[in-house]
Amino acid sequence: GIAEAALMARIDEHAAIGATAQGGVCRIALTDADRAGRDRLVQWMRDLGLTVRIDRIGNIFGIRPGQLPDAKPVMTGSHIDTVATGGRYDGNYGVLAGLEVVRWLNERQRQTLRPFVVAAFTNEEGVRFMPDMMGSLVHAGGLALDAALDTVATDGARLGDELARIGYAGNMACGALVPHAFVELHIEQGPVLEAEGVTIGAVADLQGISWQEIVVTGQSNHAGTTPMHLRHDAGYCAAAIAVFVRELARRYGGSQVATVGAIDLHPNLINVIAARATLTVDLRNTDEATLKDAEGELADYLRQLETTEGVTIEARTLARFEPVQFDERLVRLVEASAHARGLSHRRMTSGAGHDAQMMARIAPAAMVFVPSARGISHNPKEHTASADLAQGANVLLDVVLGLLDE
Amino acid sequence: GIAEAALMARIDEHAAIGATAQGGVCRIALTDADRAGRDRLVQWMRDLGLTVRIDRIGNIFGIRPGQLPDAKPVMTGSHIDTVATGGRYDGNYGVLAGLEVVRWLNERQRQTLRPFVVAAFTNEEGVRFMPDMMGSLVHAGGLALDAALDTVATDGARLGDELARIGYAGNMACGALVPHAFVELHIEQGPVLEAEGVTIGAVADLQGISWQEIVVTGQSNHAGTTPMHLRHDAGYCAAAIAVFVRELARRYGGSQVATVGAIDLHPNLINVIAARATLTVDLRNTDEATLKDAEGELADYLRQLETTEGVTIEARTLARFEPVQFDERLVRLVEASAHARGLSHRRMTSGAGHDAQMMARIAPAAMVFVPSARGISHNPKEHTASADLAQGANVLLDVVLGLLDE
Ligand SMILES: NC(=O)NCCC(=O)O
Ligand SMILES: NC(=O)NCCC(=O)O
Repeated sequence: GIAEAALMARIDEHAAIGATAQGGVCRIALTDADRAGRDRLVQWMRDLGLTVRIDRIGNIFGIRPGQLPDAKPVMTGSHIDTVATGGRYDGNYGVLAGLEVVRWLNERQRQTLRPFVVAAFTNEEGVRFMPDMMGSLVHAGGLALDAALDTVATDGARLGDELARIGYAGNMACGALVPHAFVELHIEQGPVLEAEGVTIGAVADLQGISWQEIVVTGQSNHAGTTPMHLRHDAGYCAAAIAVFVRELARRYGGSQVATVGAIDLHPNLINVIAARATLTVDLRNTDEATLKDAEGELADYLRQLETTEGVTIEARTLARFEPVQFDERLVRLVEASAHARGLSHRRMTSGAGHDAQMMARIAPAAMVFVPSARGISHNPKEHTASADLAQGANVLLDVVLGLLDE
Repeated sequence: GIAEAALMARIDEHAAIGATAQGGVCRIALTDADRAGRDRLVQWMRDLGLTVRIDRIGNIFGIRPGQLPDAKPVMTGSHIDTVATGGRYDGNYGVLAGLEVVRWLNERQRQTLRPFVVAAFTNEEGVRFMPDMMGSLVHAGGLALDAALDTVATDGARLGDELARIGYAGNMACGALVPHAFVELHIEQGPVLEAEGVTIGAVADLQGISWQEIVVTGQSNHAGTTPMHLRHDAGYCAAAIAVFVRELARRYGGSQVATVGAIDLHPNLINVIAARATLTVDLRNTDEATLKDAEGELADYLRQLETTEGVTIEARTLARFEPVQFDERLVRLVEASAHARGLSHRRMTSGAGHDAQMMARIAPAAMVFVPSARGISHNPKEHTASADLAQGANVLLDVVLGLLDE
């Protein structure tokens, strides 16, 4: 199987790029740190004898030829960008495990019928440039390349300019590599596997994601002299929306989650009623109809707040992805590998968005999850036991080996 | 009386210093804009023949000698710093009207028994350095000079360093000038006078002010994968606190107001549950016991949130001033002047903090209010009709004239 020590050495070395004082990684898409992470990955791909291709959205593909060069490749991969408070495994793990599969093949001088491709997709996290999963979305034809290149960052930069600046505006056409199958290995980023003492998650579906930015415009005024009933307090409205979506999620139950992760008030002063609030809402559900209900209830609540608070509220969709069903045959291959290796396993849903959900639009796709300690992710404390990381890579190896020769 | 055109010319000219594109003024304490505003004021004081003294906290005093030089002076004044989204009148008006009173005396070569002093107190707004009303508070002995000089700004600067940098670290001892009486002319900054069609407010008391900074520490985690019941969401807690204080104010009624004007989340990202929230709470009431009740309820709610949300919450007092009763005799002098001039008037409460509340600790003090259009203040749209501004200055003149010769 995959050598745990070699896998961990790669993960450790790569996590040093953009390492934070808290023990995590900050390698936001298309920053200098992302460039450094990409450079290391590309060097490693070359060291393994892979042919490196970069497409016009900056996705990196390391290609190991097959005996039938015209056969569709088997592809694995994930992303190497992180959130600002990222951990060491989210994304990175799947890409570097893919390299270890290549090493395994190389060490055995193993020839395969199909080419094998390890992919690192641009801007999976969507921190600086919306939407998330951008590289795989463009690859799958779900977003036009020009629109993606024209995306403006939270810091005002244009994505195409940043891509050129860091030297990753490649010339391969987006979507040129259509895989025979896509399998993504990833940490769970949630608490389920650890809580149940299970090592391998065979991911059968993935939640729908609805991201909105809400801008509330009220009227700034003096916090001391303005009676409560005469206020048009954008800060209060932002708070009320955050409380509303929390209660909505509790009321819906099931897979429904709702998060207000970002709030910015203007002028953001202690004794001034806020004139403007900008906040984000992240709603997710495995069921499209229920997710639509949640969006509808939120929209109704915003109209109601406009009336009761005398403010104007604008909501803008930042990203919207329907729930995804993964390929049943691939999910079974994941289960079969775990079973054959004597590893505990279960079918599960992904709460997070992943590149595999975009690849599922153009090819059979599935995912393999390994446990996340205490379910923590997007946090420097993100952790997975190295034995689990190695087992996940072994399952990836098994599944890939079978697919490469079919 | 006071010449409306001359008063308005001064206000217009001074409002150009730190003018914003929205038509307001941004002259935050001890910034370069504050320095420019001070320089102009000092020049105008000199032009009027006043002796200018600067004390060690940067308060500016323009002194017109009396015939009895050892008699306590009559003092008027206010402040010339503004909030970031300030208007043209808040503070400024009272200082510049004081200069117009001097001009009136000078033009008549009027000798007075007592000296007359026009004061501009440092950092009344408390935007950058806490607490607010700092210059008058230090002057009144309510805050030690050294503590005030060591105050650290929201941007990290030390107050004493900034004062020296802008050239206003004076050498007069703080509190050296103890007035016979202090009368502050100010815009209402609230809706009462306009709503009732009254021109002059005789301010009889001033609300107690409680300012707190609350820091909530939760745990950052993935917005998609973390079930609602496993979250320690600092952003939700901040929102819940804002909604709680709003409901508390509504429930208390009367003069109670409550505002969460500032919220900062960390990491402030759409798909990351916030690990930390910093927010401010501004509570005010005319009744000290009720204000204490409100503070107590908030403290209880914070303890409850700690338990239900699994977060830690720390609250720190940024400023705390008890309600103030102004001097009954001075309030009557304000009413008498308005009456004699045929101006409508009413007794009222100040919802905002003012330098007069600090001066009331060491001398008889009172305030004169004029209407604020739609009650709007701390906002570029802050407006008072120039006729009302002139009438307020006339009332100030009447009250000061009486006091100067007693
Ligand atoms: N896996 C992951 O963190 N993706 C980012 C998009 C999301 O928030 O789900
Ligand atoms: N008058 C005024 O705006 N003072 C600032 C302190 C306060 O918030 O009341």
